[in-house]
Amino acid sequence: MGKDSRPLILITNDDGMFAPGIHKLVEIARELGEVVVVAPNSPQSAKGHAVTLSDPIRLNKVDAFGGIEAYECSGTPVDCVKLAKNILLKDRVIDLCVSGINHGSNASINILYSGTMSAAMEASIEGIDSIGFSLEDYSMDADFNPAAPWITSIMQYVLQNGLKDCNLLNVNIPHPKLGPIKGMKVCLQGEGRWVEEFVEGEDPRGQKFYWLTGKFASSDTREEADISALQQGYISIVPSHHDLTLHQSISLLKSIESINV
Amino acid sequence: MGKDSRPLILITNDDGMFAPGIHKLVEIARELGEVVVVAPNSPQSAKGHAVTLSDPIRLNKVDAFGGIEAYECSGTPVDCVKLAKNILLKDRVIDLCVSGINHGSNASINILYSGTMSAAMEASIEGIDSIGFSLEDYSMDADFNPAAPWITSIMQYVLQNGLKDCNLLNVNIPHPKLGPIKGMKVCLQGEGRWVEEFVEGEDPRGQKFYWLTGKFASSDTREEADISALQQGYISIVPSHHDLTLHQSISLLKSIESINV
Repeated sequence: MGKDSRPLILITNDDGMFAPGIHKLVEIARELGEVVVVAPNSPQSAKGHAVTLSDPIRLNKVDAFGGIEAYECSGTPVDCVKLAKNILLKDRVIDLCVSGINHGSNASINILYSGTMSAAMEASIEGIDSIGFSLEDYSMDADFNPAAPWITSIMQYVLQNGLKDCNLLNVNIPHPKLGPIKGMKVCLQGEGRWVEEFVEGEDPRGQKFYWLTGKFASSDTREEADISALQQGYISIVPSHHDLTLHQSISLLKSIESINV
Repeated sequence: MGKDSRPLILITNDDGMFAPGIHKLVEIARELGEVVVVAPNSPQSAKGHAVTLSDPIRLNKVDAFGGIEAYECSGTPVDCVKLAKNILLKDRVIDLCVSGINHGSNASINILYSGTMSAAMEASIEGIDSIGFSLEDYSMDADFNPAAPWITSIMQYVLQNGLKDCNLLNVNIPHPKLGPIKGMKVCLQGEGRWVEEFVEGEDPRGQKFYWLTGKFASSDTREEADISALQQGYISIVPSHHDLTLHQSISLLKSIESINV
């Protein structure tokens, strides 16, 4: 709960403190509750669920959001959430964690690579209702304005109703070039993968290097898939969780238990 | 398929090329097929599903495993798998990817933080049957010998039968101090989380730092949970996947679709 009896909202991201996306998210969230920001002090895209084990982590209070309590963190997005929960807000109840707004889609398998989504998942592991917001536009001058009222509505819905058994939402917003947002769809995580992934080159000393790039490819045409909803101009909302068990395979594998050595 | 018509087995890990665990895994796998190793050139524990976007990645052929084709990679464990699939073995069919043997458990939610498991998951996204092996002993002089025949059996099982719909196994081996391994159990991912997570200190210049540590805590007593099997001295095998959708919550959240702005 916020000090003023409004909800306490933790905000983080993976694009760092200077990304326009997090500033828009703070602008939205401060209307709905008391906001505390803990975000990386450098871009941390595609850091997945990495945590920092071998180095100390620094935390500095900054005035980056016009009077909002905010800290820059030298660690990963997941480190940010761990420090917020264990150190900065350890005696308080965090009502909601929102991460983003990410510059670029985190639909489909991108949830796995994304620091934005991993930060939200880390909060969800701690039992905190959490939402990752991402816009399908990687550019730093992406227009977040059309998405803002929808993000407000989703946050209000979660603050009022709670997420119950599910406490993690992966919310993706269609590219602004697709025109006005048509609405919201509750979806499945679509299937897909990255292809043509490396550029090869030589550095100034003649040493070979590989640089990760690639295109996202999917043949998933299911109407309920998040990537389908996005293509049709809808915001996709995928209820997500951290249990990676493939339950249907447990009985199929049981015969392995009879092996002895 | 291996050049000698035996299976082609890709090996990686997150502890780096000098960790005894990967040497044991190579020793086991070379009896079962043609082995290619692509592993990080530095320890990459807890890197999760991170990939390297902002820097070039280097790949150097090394003779670290007695005649086995092996490459050290400057990137993350997931980068290793991407380079193996897209560059080194791009014209060949990889029959199996094994990752580990990790020094330390990757049961329960540790699958999320683990570079070892994320590497295996990356291969599984590419449709390759993949297994991550981890021993519940963090020390660098951990004894992998009692586990070796079990690991051989699991790899043989997967090579012979395939994993079908599931193509990712999270295999954890009980701490050697628990005595002889009792057998294998096909399990669920147990619930748990890390607590008491930071040591606070001051660096030589008087600046405050935080250092991640912590204890794993679980109240999950389900017989089918991986952590229960491990406590009882069994190897836990959790069929896992990369679809994080919480399907049961989709209908519960449908009312959000009626919101318009």
